[in-house]
Amino acid sequence: MSSPAKCATVLTCKAAVAWGPGEPLALEEVEVDPPEAMEIRIKVTCSSLCRSDITQWESKAQPSLFPRIFGHEASGVVESVGEGVTEFVVGDHVLTVFIGECQSCKHCFSGRSNICQKLGLERKGVMHTNKKTRFSIKGRPIYHYCAVSSFSEYAVVHSGCAVKISKDAPMDRICLLSCGVATGFGAVWKVADVSKGSTVVIFGLGTVGLSVAQAAKLRGASQIIGVDNNPRKFEKGKSFGVTSFINPDDYNEPIPQVIKRMTDGGADYSFECIGDTGAVTTALQSCSDAWGMTVTLGVPKTNPEVSLHYAQLLSGKTLKGSLFGGWRPKTDLPSLVQKCMDKEIHLDGFVTHDIIFDNINEAFNLMKEGKCLRCVIHMQK
Amino acid sequence: MSSPAKCATVLTCKAAVAWGPGEPLALEEVEVDPPEAMEIRIKVTCSSLCRSDITQWESKAQPSLFPRIFGHEASGVVESVGEGVTEFVVGDHVLTVFIGECQSCKHCFSGRSNICQKLGLERKGVMHTNKKTRFSIKGRPIYHYCAVSSFSEYAVVHSGCAVKISKDAPMDRICLLSCGVATGFGAVWKVADVSKGSTVVIFGLGTVGLSVAQAAKLRGASQIIGVDNNPRKFEKGKSFGVTSFINPDDYNEPIPQVIKRMTDGGADYSFECIGDTGAVTTALQSCSDAWGMTVTLGVPKTNPEVSLHYAQLLSGKTLKGSLFGGWRPKTDLPSLVQKCMDKEIHLDGFVTHDIIFDNINEAFNLMKEGKCLRCVIHMQK
Repeated sequence: MSSPAKCATVLTCKAAVAWGPGEPLALEEVEVDPPEAMEIRIKVTCSSLCRSDITQWESKAQPSLFPRIFGHEASGVVESVGEGVTEFVVGDHVLTVFIGECQSCKHCFSGRSNICQKLGLERKGVMHTNKKTRFSIKGRPIYHYCAVSSFSEYAVVHSGCAVKISKDAPMDRICLLSCGVATGFGAVWKVADVSKGSTVVIFGLGTVGLSVAQAAKLRGASQIIGVDNNPRKFEKGKSFGVTSFINPDDYNEPIPQVIKRMTDGGADYSFECIGDTGAVTTALQSCSDAWGMTVTLGVPKTNPEVSLHYAQLLSGKTLKGSLFGGWRPKTDLPSLVQKCMDKEIHLDGFVTHDIIFDNINEAFNLMKEGKCLRCVIHMQK
Repeated sequence: MSSPAKCATVLTCKAAVAWGPGEPLALEEVEVDPPEAMEIRIKVTCSSLCRSDITQWESKAQPSLFPRIFGHEASGVVESVGEGVTEFVVGDHVLTVFIGECQSCKHCFSGRSNICQKLGLERKGVMHTNKKTRFSIKGRPIYHYCAVSSFSEYAVVHSGCAVKISKDAPMDRICLLSCGVATGFGAVWKVADVSKGSTVVIFGLGTVGLSVAQAAKLRGASQIIGVDNNPRKFEKGKSFGVTSFINPDDYNEPIPQVIKRMTDGGADYSFECIGDTGAVTTALQSCSDAWGMTVTLGVPKTNPEVSLHYAQLLSGKTLKGSLFGGWRPKTDLPSLVQKCMDKEIHLDGFVTHDIIFDNINEAFNLMKEGKCLRCVIHMQK
């Protein structure tokens, strides 16, 4: 039975508010509206910090979207449901997702896309439905991030942007499937569909890149080459399945040339996990002239233009983009959750820090300095 | 039984020689060497003129490759075979191909690529094997084009660059499968694998673009939009299956916007058949954000750099290159030849002019002025 919407009222809780680009977060008392129609309000259990939170927090491109609450990779418990919600009841365990699945638009209905036309990437700091915020401080709106904003003890999300999960799933680890780890696994398993014995090269060994490595290893890839400027990443990478490591600083020749030599003509698959358009070009040059496929996994931090020489295409290469690993959240995430519970997918290795909510700025600092993979922020005392 | 190589000697015949970039062809007596090991010499029956012959003929980028004999889209009869050739005997009917299939290199052996590592696109005006020419005039080497050079009464090609065809196939039409028409069909049937009911947009309605249209129609595409600056192309296009026509000169808004309106969000597939890197960008912008696939079919005439905004990739689009429609010539062409003989694929509509060899410059002028689709040059009297 769903709780009637009329039961829910405005509540007050603690949230980490960014008052301006790059400014340390301030823990503030915020008012959280009750969920509107088809929305749910969640008591956030854990929210891990993703690189894109940092990128947007640091960005000066949209100063009007501050004050803002970041966070989008989260697990939680449904606290109340809005009018019309039948999928969730109070007490359900959920993952939040930054791209929703309405299950009725042309894209969702097709079964061929995870780019929901109704609940796609929200970039204006508001909720999809009425283009307003659900957070405020003394009447002043506090903007959302990706229509999730999980760096708050409570958050309102559209019911299409939450996925029900088993109550047995470990809330402090499963939150990683909400974005980064699912993104890497999807790029390998769903978008590229890497086959056994393939050669794989990964540009960038952060959480997303290491998820690609783990997913490729599980598919039986014969060679998994990691490319990263941070020499410490090699040891870390090994435990995720990386078999060879390239630090571009160690070479006086173009990296695609190195990779082509190592793979007898280019990798079968290359994955761009940095969020750098130049690396997309390099990744494309590094894969096989005959059947190479390059998959892009993220959003570029700076220059958004990808440039590539036509000859790279001529021989039959494929360049394919992806967001959230191509997964349709409601349709596909439950089976990933199950694989984590079955210990097929290992999440523990990604978590370098468990941090209490009060210390959230520590997580931001660690990520800024490249000293962590995932910091899981425990939102409740 | 193959004829022993020792029977073949140098022969003299008529060839159309380009003495310099863009200079009218001169019909000259040339000496044609006997085939070397694994080569065959062909009496060329018909050779149709392809846009890439013109592009290379006009290009001033490689003046050292003149004097040169162009032509690569041809049918002919085996006149003699070199040492070691067992696949062909004198009298066999063949199509020439500009990318060969050695059937033994890593790429050929994989079955996943048509980019033969031994007999790939030859760009230096010589034969693959000993890097020399088989044509000369009074001892002066005359350069090849794509290791075919079919604008000669006789031509030497590697046995891996010829495909045996039925003697019942019409030599004056089947030559179109040697490049242009096969390229278009392959892009649709093999590379994109267009499904029934799909929406398709084609940039450039030359022979390649119209082949895409015919192939898409045969696959049951529901909407086939042709984009071309030449308004005469619409009537022509209709007979190949084009259902809507866009002349960019008639619009004051970006063409992707027009196409997205016509197709409810973007075409399922877009094909770049102009050989223009700017059109690749436009084609990518014109296909569906959710599952759109853009296929490039040719070699750009000028700027070789493709530029695209990362956001075009993010939502899951695919950009895929192709050469010769992805067909492996020996493996795949025979079934296409059969489809032509069975009247499933219609070649007649592509042939706008039948021209005798002596008038070959007429064909070059017609193509330069965009006044033809295929001119078939009948090489023998």
